[in-house]
Amino acid sequence: MIRINEHFTKLKSSYLFADIARRVAAYQDAHPGRSIIRLGIGDVTEPLPPVCVDALRTAADEMGRRETFKGYGPDHGYAFLREAIARVDYQARACAIEPDEVFISDGAKCDCGNIQELFARDACVAIPDPVYPVYLDTNVMAGRTGPERAGRYDGIVYLESTPAHGYVPGLPAPAVERIYRWVPNHQLATWVDYAKRNRAIIIFDSAYETFIRDPQIPHSIYEIDGARDVAIEIRSFSKTAGFTGTRCAYTVIPRTVVGYDAAGNAHPLHALWSRRQATKFNGVSYPVQRAAAAVFTDEGRRQTRALADFYLGNARLIRDALTGLGVPCAGGENAPYLWANVGRDSWAFFDLLLDKAGVVVTPGAGFGRCGEGHVRISAFNSRENVAAALERIAAALA
Amino acid sequence: MIRINEHFTKLKSSYLFADIARRVAAYQDAHPGRSIIRLGIGDVTEPLPPVCVDALRTAADEMGRRETFKGYGPDHGYAFLREAIARVDYQARACAIEPDEVFISDGAKCDCGNIQELFARDACVAIPDPVYPVYLDTNVMAGRTGPERAGRYDGIVYLESTPAHGYVPGLPAPAVERIYRWVPNHQLATWVDYAKRNRAIIIFDSAYETFIRDPQIPHSIYEIDGARDVAIEIRSFSKTAGFTGTRCAYTVIPRTVVGYDAAGNAHPLHALWSRRQATKFNGVSYPVQRAAAAVFTDEGRRQTRALADFYLGNARLIRDALTGLGVPCAGGENAPYLWANVGRDSWAFFDLLLDKAGVVVTPGAGFGRCGEGHVRISAFNSRENVAAALERIAAALA
Repeated sequence: MIRINEHFTKLKSSYLFADIARRVAAYQDAHPGRSIIRLGIGDVTEPLPPVCVDALRTAADEMGRRETFKGYGPDHGYAFLREAIARVDYQARACAIEPDEVFISDGAKCDCGNIQELFARDACVAIPDPVYPVYLDTNVMAGRTGPERAGRYDGIVYLESTPAHGYVPGLPAPAVERIYRWVPNHQLATWVDYAKRNRAIIIFDSAYETFIRDPQIPHSIYEIDGARDVAIEIRSFSKTAGFTGTRCAYTVIPRTVVGYDAAGNAHPLHALWSRRQATKFNGVSYPVQRAAAAVFTDEGRRQTRALADFYLGNARLIRDALTGLGVPCAGGENAPYLWANVGRDSWAFFDLLLDKAGVVVTPGAGFGRCGEGHVRISAFNSRENVAAALERIAAALA
Repeated sequence: MIRINEHFTKLKSSYLFADIARRVAAYQDAHPGRSIIRLGIGDVTEPLPPVCVDALRTAADEMGRRETFKGYGPDHGYAFLREAIARVDYQARACAIEPDEVFISDGAKCDCGNIQELFARDACVAIPDPVYPVYLDTNVMAGRTGPERAGRYDGIVYLESTPAHGYVPGLPAPAVERIYRWVPNHQLATWVDYAKRNRAIIIFDSAYETFIRDPQIPHSIYEIDGARDVAIEIRSFSKTAGFTGTRCAYTVIPRTVVGYDAAGNAHPLHALWSRRQATKFNGVSYPVQRAAAAVFTDEGRRQTRALADFYLGNARLIRDALTGLGVPCAGGENAPYLWANVGRDSWAFFDLLLDKAGVVVTPGAGFGRCGEGHVRISAFNSRENVAAALERIAAALA
C-alpha cells in the first residue's frame, strides 16, 4: 500500500496566492461586469524590456537553424549569463563572487523551496513572521515541523516583525538554519555576525534588490564582511526585468559556505547544490537565458532601471494616498510593496476592498500571525490602474 | 551549527552524465585536434520544428507589448497547452484524461526527481536495473535508502533486466512505490494488475513515446484498463520536438490515483502534486508553452513525426552496423537508444571507443549493476555523424 508524505496534510489546503485567486474568481463570477484592479500577488504588468524581446527573437532564430541550435545547456547555466551576473551584480559592487558560484534557475520560488533539501531534516529553522509562505510551507512539507497550532508550527523559530519594533525582528536564540528576507535593511552585518558565531546559514532572498535607491542599503549580502562564509543569496529577473512569465532567477553559493555532518566535518554547500541541481533540474530555456543576459548590457540596464523607477513611482503614490487616509504604512520606499497597518482583521479588510472597491490586496494574516491587522499592497500595475484603485479605496474607506 | 542532509554523501560524487562530460572534456583537452562524435547523453541535434520557432517568435512579440504581455501564468500550465495535450495525446487514443489532470513543467527530469516528495519517507521503492539514475539518486537524497554496497543501495528493490530474460524485469514482491521506465512494452497490463492488487503506484516515464511505431505497443499507460487508479505518467517535449534546450514536459496525475496515510485514509495524489507544484514552482515560460502547443497543430505533428523518423533512421543504421560487427543489441526499434551487449567492462569499452574512435557512448554500469557489460548508444545526431561514428567504431573493433 502506497503511503503518502503525511507532512503535506499539516499544510493549509492551498497556497496563499492560489487561495486569493480563487476568492477573486468567485467574486468576479458573482459580479461579472465589475472591474477588478489587482494589487495583490505582485505580478508585473509592463512589457518585457525591448532588449529582452530582441534577445528572445534572436534566440528563437538560432534554435531554428542546425548550426546554431542549442540542446541541453550546462546544468547550472550558460557561462555568458553567469559571467554577466558575477561582473555586474557582484564584482562591480566589490563582492568577490565568481561566475561558477552563480547557479541559474527558472525561479526564485523554486530555489527558495528547494534549498532546504541541503539541510538535515531536524535542522532548526528560523523564519520571519510575516514571511513569504514558500519558506515556511516547504519546510513543513519536508517534515521539519510539528503540526500547526493557532497559526504557528511547532519546531519553527519565528522572528517577529511588528509595528512596535519598526517591523525589524530581533536575533534568534542559536538557530541552525535561517531564512531571511526583508531586503531594505541596514542591519545585515548583525545577522552575518550572528551566523558566523553560531555557524548558521543565512538564506538571503534578494528578489527585490532592483528597487533599492538608498545608497546606505546593501544590494547584496556579500557587501557585508564575512558573508561569503555564511550566506546564500537568491535573486530573480521577475521584478528586475518583468520576467514573472518568462522565468529566470539565480542562486549564489560561494565555495566558502559550509555545512557540517554529525561528525563535525565541513561540507561545501556549493557541491551539494551542484549535485542537487544536476540531478533534479535540466537548466533554463536557452532563449530565456539569452533574454536574461540582455539585461546586463548598457541598454538593458537603462531599460530595467526605468522599469523599476516606474513601479517605485506607483509605490510613492500609494504611500502618499494611504498616509493621507490615515493608514500607517511601511515599505513603498526601496521596495515595490507597502505594508499597511489597517488596524482590523486582514481578511475582513481584503473582503471590504474587494467588495466596495474592486481592489485586490494581500491579507497580512496570509504571511503569518504578525501579519494580522495589515495588508500588503503591490505597486505592480499601470499608473492608470493605481490611480483608479486609490480613488476607489478612498471612497470605500470614507 | 548548520547540519547538512547527510543522505547526499551516500551518492557518487557526480551525476552520471556530468561525469561523462568531464571525462570527454579531459580527453578533448589532451587531444585538441581530435573530432569527437557524441552518441552518449542523448541530446538532440536537429533544429526546433519551424512551427515551434514561429511560436517562440510570436510569443516574444506578445511579451513586448503591454496589451499582450504575460506575467505569472497559471501554476500548472496554460489551458491552451493542457487542453491540446489531453485531446491529442490522450483522448484521441481513448484515454480518459482531462486537461486539469495534466501538469506542465520545465522537464521530465525535474518531475521524475520531484514526484518522490509525495510519498512517505519509508515507502518501499522498486527501481529497474539498469535505470535512469535520476530515479535512484533522488530517492537516495530523500533518505529512502541505506548506504551503497557493491553498487546497490540498501532499501531499494531492484528489478533486474538482463539478457537472460530478454531485458524484461519480473514483478517485484509487494513493493509500495514503483518507478518504471522501459517504454516499448507489451506487458503493461501485468504491471497495472500488480499495482491494483498491492495498492502500489506506477510512475511511468514515457519520455520516448514519440518513437513507438509498433501498433501493438501502447503509447500511454492509460491505454491499459485500470491504470487511471494506479499510474502517474511523465512525458517530455525534449525528444518529441527537440526541446532539450527549450525545456517543457508534463506529468499526468488522474484524479482517481490515491495514496494512503498511516490510518488507511485515501488521499488523491492530484491534490498533493498540485500543492507541491503551486508551492515550489512558478510555471513554464510563456513563450516555451506556446512553442510546445504548436507541436499539436496538424503541421506541428507532421514536423515532429518527421523528426522522430529521422532519428529512428539513425537507430536502424546503428543497429545494423553493430549487429554486423557481432555485437548483440536491444532497442533501436520503437526507441532512440540501443543497448549493446559488448561483453566486457562498460567503462573500459567507453574508454576504448573514446580513445580509438573519438565516439562517446554511455557505459551501462552507470545505469546500474545489470548495465555492466553493456553500453547505451544514442541515435541523436546528424546522419553524417552517425555514419562517421559507425565507420570509426568498426575500425576500432576490427
